[in-house]
Amino acid sequence: MQSSAPRHPQLAPSERILMGPGPSTVPARILQAMASPTLGHLDPEYLAIMDETRELLRAVFRTRNELTLAVSGTGSAGMEACVVNLVEPGDEVVVCVNGVFGARMKDVMERAGATVHAIEIPWGESFTEIQIADALERHPKTKVLGIVHAETSTGAHTPLEGVAKLVHDTGALLLVDAVTSLGGMDVRIDDWGVDACYSGTQKCLSCPPGLSPVTFSPRALEAMDARKTKVQSWYLDMTMLRNYWGGNRVYHHTAPINMTYALREALCLVVEEGLDARVARHRENHERLRAGLEKLGLRYIPEKSLTTLNAVQAPEGVNEAEGRKWLLENYDLEIGAGLGPFAGKAWRIGLMGHASTRRNVDLVLAALGELLA
Amino acid sequence: MQSSAPRHPQLAPSERILMGPGPSTVPARILQAMASPTLGHLDPEYLAIMDETRELLRAVFRTRNELTLAVSGTGSAGMEACVVNLVEPGDEVVVCVNGVFGARMKDVMERAGATVHAIEIPWGESFTEIQIADALERHPKTKVLGIVHAETSTGAHTPLEGVAKLVHDTGALLLVDAVTSLGGMDVRIDDWGVDACYSGTQKCLSCPPGLSPVTFSPRALEAMDARKTKVQSWYLDMTMLRNYWGGNRVYHHTAPINMTYALREALCLVVEEGLDARVARHRENHERLRAGLEKLGLRYIPEKSLTTLNAVQAPEGVNEAEGRKWLLENYDLEIGAGLGPFAGKAWRIGLMGHASTRRNVDLVLAALGELLA
Repeated sequence: MQSSAPRHPQLAPSERILMGPGPSTVPARILQAMASPTLGHLDPEYLAIMDETRELLRAVFRTRNELTLAVSGTGSAGMEACVVNLVEPGDEVVVCVNGVFGARMKDVMERAGATVHAIEIPWGESFTEIQIADALERHPKTKVLGIVHAETSTGAHTPLEGVAKLVHDTGALLLVDAVTSLGGMDVRIDDWGVDACYSGTQKCLSCPPGLSPVTFSPRALEAMDARKTKVQSWYLDMTMLRNYWGGNRVYHHTAPINMTYALREALCLVVEEGLDARVARHRENHERLRAGLEKLGLRYIPEKSLTTLNAVQAPEGVNEAEGRKWLLENYDLEIGAGLGPFAGKAWRIGLMGHASTRRNVDLVLAALGELLA
Repeated sequence: MQSSAPRHPQLAPSERILMGPGPSTVPARILQAMASPTLGHLDPEYLAIMDETRELLRAVFRTRNELTLAVSGTGSAGMEACVVNLVEPGDEVVVCVNGVFGARMKDVMERAGATVHAIEIPWGESFTEIQIADALERHPKTKVLGIVHAETSTGAHTPLEGVAKLVHDTGALLLVDAVTSLGGMDVRIDDWGVDACYSGTQKCLSCPPGLSPVTFSPRALEAMDARKTKVQSWYLDMTMLRNYWGGNRVYHHTAPINMTYALREALCLVVEEGLDARVARHRENHERLRAGLEKLGLRYIPEKSLTTLNAVQAPEGVNEAEGRKWLLENYDLEIGAGLGPFAGKAWRIGLMGHASTRRNVDLVLAALGELLA
């Protein structure tokens, strides 16, 4: 296969340290696994890799849910997959909105034909059980309550330990966004009684973006089995995806083979480190960063911060965009901007997965110290 | 980051020669590009790679369409993206069904709320302009006519040169599935007057699966702009995706960064070879394979075969699944099974992209000769 045109220059992206709201820095081991030879999507070797990936996903989600798999899209595709499979036109749902991703879930619910009761609190705040119980009482026909565990736009953490009981007592299902927590903070699907949960690969799993881990409880499966209408998305229809990932291996669509290699490797790294050790590492590095940031005079936006993402107010008199650009150009170091009401007013500093290290904490503190000096 | 558990064994997939209906064998250059360091999805370097990828996509689609990009999912996500953006509930559409992918398009259209007029012909046959004109005459309110250029399930090729005129004369839009033709057979979006087209990365572009190139004509954009309802899929909503891929760079979802690297590299390979040379290569290797298969007594299923995929009847007395297994185990060579009415009765031999070589043609002929001896 001779070329008739000159060869394009080789791709040579800078080696950034990714400390924004995701993607996080990807370990070499994962990049190498991703570059393994492509198998066919029905090759017995690939099917074995899918099985192994599902087992690893169950371990990381801390669940025994049979229906646990990776949706062939990014985290937002996982959100949409959960919504369109659980919700039918006319269903009533409650969505808890305290940032971009709660608002997105509301939008996705509406597009699926749900009657959405949104409970909104100021961005940066976390939901309380009282607020949730109150919403459920006001909307007794709620089929699904959707909530964001780790709100990436503000860094707010909403603890979920007691939420499922409130939701289940009314007969509803609990849908959780764990995009920025899975693999970095405690996420306990079975212990907490979560019925459906989605995440992304490019946050605390430190895998490139492109897949969305999802899991559905037996109660969620019952709701799907009781549907009267077809799922509006063919691509995300779990009734068919179950047959490809499950026993029958019925061809649905061609899975992103090499992305599955990468996800399997990322999950291996999580399991090898151990979930408890990993959660502790994220907490320790967060505390070290927090102490340093506060010493620099920076103030946290959320009352209850995630350990995986640190949203702080940009200091008065500093152009936050110029600051980020300076870090990128001088340190190959990426941090994130504010969103919504915090656009132009905040920095979001991620400590996710492979990027949550003492080395990175000290580096970003040194760089910010230089910038703010 | 010490491990508390032993390291999982390294992933070591066999180095298959992929001559099924896709994925096709991925060149090392693409795998290496994919393993480049992950950038942030708003990094100026990544935005430049997106721009370059769009330009390359336009070259390969032979179009000047502004709205040309890669959807963050596989080919079926591209199909759904085209459908849900063009169609609103209650719209009338015509879908041409001569295999799995026409049937899938019908299903996706129905889920989008369209009133679908399907024209069905036996699997393996190709549509004629008379059949299309007749359907349009019977359904004068048709908004979109959907047709599969290269039906992967049967190997049937439907030429499209004159179809757009028929469709446009009635005021409808032409939607084309080019999953198994783009980059291997002539696909001329602007010359042919195609209004919306989707493809996959893992066929004639020889990139791993995970992205879906799509393109929309100015007429398709007008139809989108005239919508009365929101696009039912948030993830696939082009009104928002345009702003991320286009001038404003508004964050929508986190793009599959490393898959974009791979796609860019795959498109570079196409442009370096030259589209005409590439189409000719696919034709020559197809003709060489066809002569050899017919010499072995194998009969083609479609009347008009694709040059990228060769569907033949499995010989009497041969268990086709056992035959494929034997090829995989003895030659690390993957060919595909039949689907639908051809399940258990056909082989599908792909000659796509990097896998369309004289070497592979002679290898598969030698292996099949051995099997059938």
